[in-house]
Amino acid sequence: MSEKLFFVNDYGEGCHPKVLEKLAATNLEHLAGYGSDKYCESAKEKIRKACDCPEADIWFISGGTQTNAIVISALLKSYEGVISAVTGHINGHEAGAVEHLGCKVLPLPQHEGKIDAGELKEYMRTFYGDANHEHMVFPGMVYISHPTEYGTLYTKDELTALSNVCREYEMPLFMDGARMGYGLMSYQTDVTLPDIAKLCDVFYIGGTKVGALCGEAVVFTKGNMPKHFLAIVKQNGALLAKGRLMGVQFDTLFTDNLYFDISRHAIDMAQELKKVFAEKGYRFFIDSPTNQQFIVLENEKMQALSQFVDFSFWEKLDENHTVVRFATSWATKKEDIDKLAALL
Amino acid sequence: MSEKLFFVNDYGEGCHPKVLEKLAATNLEHLAGYGSDKYCESAKEKIRKACDCPEADIWFISGGTQTNAIVISALLKSYEGVISAVTGHINGHEAGAVEHLGCKVLPLPQHEGKIDAGELKEYMRTFYGDANHEHMVFPGMVYISHPTEYGTLYTKDELTALSNVCREYEMPLFMDGARMGYGLMSYQTDVTLPDIAKLCDVFYIGGTKVGALCGEAVVFTKGNMPKHFLAIVKQNGALLAKGRLMGVQFDTLFTDNLYFDISRHAIDMAQELKKVFAEKGYRFFIDSPTNQQFIVLENEKMQALSQFVDFSFWEKLDENHTVVRFATSWATKKEDIDKLAALL
Amino acid sequence: MSEKLFFVNDYGEGCHPKVLEKLAATNLEHLAGYGSDKYCESAKEKIRKACDCPEADIWFISGGTQTNAIVISALLKSYEGVISAVTGHINGHEAGAVEHLGCKVLPLPQHEGKIDAGELKEYMRTFYGDANHEHMVFPGMVYISHPTEYGTLYTKDELTALSNVCREYEMPLFMDGARMGYGLMSYQTDVTLPDIAKLCDVFYIGGTKVGALCGEAVVFTKGNMPKHFLAIVKQNGALLAKGRLMGVQFDTLFTDNLYFDISRHAIDMAQELKKVFAEKGYRFFIDSPTNQQFIVLENEKMQALSQFVDFSFWEKLDENHTVVRFATSWATKKEDIDKLAALL
Amino acid sequence: MSEKLFFVNDYGEGCHPKVLEKLAATNLEHLAGYGSDKYCESAKEKIRKACDCPEADIWFISGGTQTNAIVISALLKSYEGVISAVTGHINGHEAGAVEHLGCKVLPLPQHEGKIDAGELKEYMRTFYGDANHEHMVFPGMVYISHPTEYGTLYTKDELTALSNVCREYEMPLFMDGARMGYGLMSYQTDVTLPDIAKLCDVFYIGGTKVGALCGEAVVFTKGNMPKHFLAIVKQNGALLAKGRLMGVQFDTLFTDNLYFDISRHAIDMAQELKKVFAEKGYRFFIDSPTNQQFIVLENEKMQALSQFVDFSFWEKLDENHTVVRFATSWATKKEDIDKLAALL
Repeated sequence: MSEKLFFVNDYGEGCHPKVLEKLAATNLEHLAGYGSDKYCESAKEKIRKACDCPEADIWFISGGTQTNAIVISALLKSYEGVISAVTGHINGHEAGAVEHLGCKVLPLPQHEGKIDAGELKEYMRTFYGDANHEHMVFPGMVYISHPTEYGTLYTKDELTALSNVCREYEMPLFMDGARMGYGLMSYQTDVTLPDIAKLCDVFYIGGTKVGALCGEAVVFTKGNMPKHFLAIVKQNGALLAKGRLMGVQFDTLFTDNLYFDISRHAIDMAQELKKVFAEKGYRFFIDSPTNQQFIVLENEKMQALSQFVDFSFWEKLDENHTVVRFATSWATKKEDIDKLAALL
Repeated sequence: MSEKLFFVNDYGEGCHPKVLEKLAATNLEHLAGYGSDKYCESAKEKIRKACDCPEADIWFISGGTQTNAIVISALLKSYEGVISAVTGHINGHEAGAVEHLGCKVLPLPQHEGKIDAGELKEYMRTFYGDANHEHMVFPGMVYISHPTEYGTLYTKDELTALSNVCREYEMPLFMDGARMGYGLMSYQTDVTLPDIAKLCDVFYIGGTKVGALCGEAVVFTKGNMPKHFLAIVKQNGALLAKGRLMGVQFDTLFTDNLYFDISRHAIDMAQELKKVFAEKGYRFFIDSPTNQQFIVLENEKMQALSQFVDFSFWEKLDENHTVVRFATSWATKKEDIDKLAALL
Repeated sequence: MSEKLFFVNDYGEGCHPKVLEKLAATNLEHLAGYGSDKYCESAKEKIRKACDCPEADIWFISGGTQTNAIVISALLKSYEGVISAVTGHINGHEAGAVEHLGCKVLPLPQHEGKIDAGELKEYMRTFYGDANHEHMVFPGMVYISHPTEYGTLYTKDELTALSNVCREYEMPLFMDGARMGYGLMSYQTDVTLPDIAKLCDVFYIGGTKVGALCGEAVVFTKGNMPKHFLAIVKQNGALLAKGRLMGVQFDTLFTDNLYFDISRHAIDMAQELKKVFAEKGYRFFIDSPTNQQFIVLENEKMQALSQFVDFSFWEKLDENHTVVRFATSWATKKEDIDKLAALL
Repeated sequence: MSEKLFFVNDYGEGCHPKVLEKLAATNLEHLAGYGSDKYCESAKEKIRKACDCPEADIWFISGGTQTNAIVISALLKSYEGVISAVTGHINGHEAGAVEHLGCKVLPLPQHEGKIDAGELKEYMRTFYGDANHEHMVFPGMVYISHPTEYGTLYTKDELTALSNVCREYEMPLFMDGARMGYGLMSYQTDVTLPDIAKLCDVFYIGGTKVGALCGEAVVFTKGNMPKHFLAIVKQNGALLAKGRLMGVQFDTLFTDNLYFDISRHAIDMAQELKKVFAEKGYRFFIDSPTNQQFIVLENEKMQALSQFVDFSFWEKLDENHTVVRFATSWATKKEDIDKLAALL
């Protein structure tokens, strides 16, 4: 076996071949800069349709951390912070990008990566019930990820409940969809893209981890894109001169159902992976319905396996066991899972 | 003529075809993320050689504004600001990105886009001579662009003089090389890439405007890359998960002299353009030795021409005349200049 | 002469004795914290009356730099900057406090410390006329000082013209009144406090330089105090637990005309000072109608004088002459001016 | 009873009468501005002696939130955050001042307001053991309060253990001493001011809550005051023109043991208060050895008491009980405690 099997993450390859083909086909066209080209326009129109949200304002930004930091800092007032699960990506794994722009993350307890609408409501009630709340950071926005950092998904009921609390307190609900395709195409979800557009005030559809070289599509669903957002994006260093790179990629991903088809492929591969581990009697750390699977391995087995397979360390479970992550993507091959099965 | 002739800017096309070929050829390889892949390593090594600076630390960032803001804010102390020509890109056309990160731009007079070492020294002397200078923003860094916003170039003597003042006051000299290729391959320069690496403390080699889809290569020449720069880049939202996009592009551009050859082509095309305008008796607003040419047009002629040619408005000269910019790039075709000549 | 004559600045003494008396008289009263005590309320009410602006929202902040930075950053949107004379205090002598909070200062030419409404209007026209203005910092506010850093004053016509441009472009006009008392009580002004309240959107009445130990009263005149301003002030570290320190001082200063009487005294002393210098044939660098006087001294004379008198170095005029500043205050004694006259 | 008994907080009065007397006695002296006057110098020298730390660098800042935000942001690198108990004042009650300057607070579990050295060490080990820690905020400083927000105190052993972990990881240990006097003069502490100076890298001695009108004395104990700290303080709007206000107050407080004597008085009053509540069978929420006492009241009793006594709501304990805070200060009178006893 010349190369190890690859299950480390969902950004280990380049982009879906059709994306590359379209970049090549349009390469010498002269296009306007800074996101005003026709491919950006076309991509936005297709995304609006996919979201069933004709009035959506859409912007493309090259990465997830940048998107989170810009959206959050642009929507919050200076005295406000953003509520997030303590395990939220913005709270732990973005090098403090949100705080770097002056905004505090207000952590709520996590339940398999999710926050609970009842706890959110209690948090809000306690905050406004405190006589000294003007000395505290005002909760001004709610951040959730879907799928979460643990691969789990909100149900439509859970999302509706969160949305209701947000509306009661007039806070935007923001969904980090870095892996949104894998959530939408899970076999265990009742949440559609139009549902998300209805229930969230702003969200992003991840490209980097779902078939693009880079890029996330931010969708403002309620006429709430901040005024002069181009200037804000520029000020944050996130305005690409060749906006076509974003436009062409998303235009391709949202043509002929590509984004959803390749996401479904990753889900199918994850299901195969799950079956393979289950059949061999392995224990799952969490029951993930998406493309990230968290497996408990005996340390010795982990060492042995790592000679032939690349996967991610997640966390130490106890002296003898470790939680590891296996991720599939649009590029995962069925034959690699068969090879993996033979190694278990 | 189905499409207008294109001289608007140097980022109107995609990327050099060889870059795209290499992206395709490496697309399905499994690579490490966040800039630690082998193509990034290879590109860095080639750039170190081209700079004759084996100890350089190099980082790839996707755009110029982002690069400027990160480098400047990472190198300045909080009480320091960055000196720049009043016409410097950071001072006027980056939507306040540098100030957004807390740093003041300290403007010096411009001379065809350049600052003068004598005036810089006088500024420093006056600053430290002022008894109240602890109430002022300390000059902590010097920013220059090469080519400048007017297409002009520093001579080696001018650059050496600036470098000397910076060293006397222990300030880093930072060169914005968004169009560096066009400066290096000008027929009217005595400044080489190794000269720049010797005289500057940090600079960047522009990719976006010189053949890449996006990307700038930041070069720290004196062992002065800030500690934990990866975390700093991440915190600023500029760390691409698929760092390969940067690595593959710069590896290609620095293979077989490609970066320099395509830059030379743009310069050759600019010389042709200059000749065409000169032969027809047009006036130049500035004598630019690089790929941006600034022409004075009568307003009527400008209107007439704009039906067949795309170029940029620069500034109003007087009631009847306007300064416009014609830019060439690696993609400019000689036949388009011939067609332009016929229209003048 | 045991001690040198003191004309260095207007903050060399403590506070007006009546302020100290009132602090002592109220010292043991139990009062609410954070600016909600009865003396703050009373002071605000008296200031509203003095401004003839019953709907004004007023806040007390301990120093001028802090006030400028908080007001400017609270009123600007992130993509906006503040216009100021190049000589404005915020641009040169506040250690970059405004930029530290992310806001760019946009300098206009100064005319004896003042900006010109025509030039302001031209700046706005040019900005919005530029096709690329979304890549630039939007002018979002106008900062003026009155008296200026050169002791000069806007006329009512000049102020009205500035106010009109600001309203046309929907920008707040902010007046830094660190020395406002000395401006209002000048014999050469036609601008009253009610005029200022009408023409400006926000301004502050300086206490530190006009009889208080510390403190500036910020006045929002148009129902435009930012929501949750207490939290904003707290977030900027400027909320004193013992807000009474501010309330008692301003309540005293605005009782029985004290603020105006002591300002007039400083003006009277400045007139005496002017007369003394004029009679001896000294040259004035600028014709200042307020408490700061800028005199041109021969270097030898300056040296000789400085043995007996404390004054401020302002700037070198030429090889043989220096501009120095003599300041009066509420505490300046007529006899000290007589002693000075004897030394000239 | 004309006025209610006052136990709301320790900043309800002005300042100790001796402070006011000294302000009056020095009021008309001409002094240098910005903290360079002789009273600041004298106060610093006295504090150095009290700390037994002759090499300490000292600065006066007007309030606690401002001090915390400036010290933390000045000492952290941009990619670092500050560790604090989840109940730390900076984490919950400073309106996000630390994040406003770009720094993340990294919360550790609290134990009666304190953090545990073992948990701190484990946090550090886990952080550096994580392969992805370059994507996380680096722990760069430890913040503790002493007394804590619950009135509790670190023992010398606990403080030494924290200090050792900090030194192992080369992080400064920063102590918020807003109520330091009440900690030092507690009958249940083995920690002295020289101990604090030895074990901490930077701390502040609170004035606002211990006899001053405003002001905190920041002490850098290891030659670690940031370069150009004056400019940093100015940039943060915290440089008072009349620095004498700070100097005179701290000079008085550190003359003839005043700071310690008035702190001891508050402790004695707190002991009396405790005795009174204990004798009447009231329950204490926490066993506080300092000037803040946390009592559990039945809701009905709380209502009844509040007609005659001012105290602070702390938190709801259960349906029928509430935790309230009674605070003493340098100004608390024994007779008021006797009156309170009669009401219980």
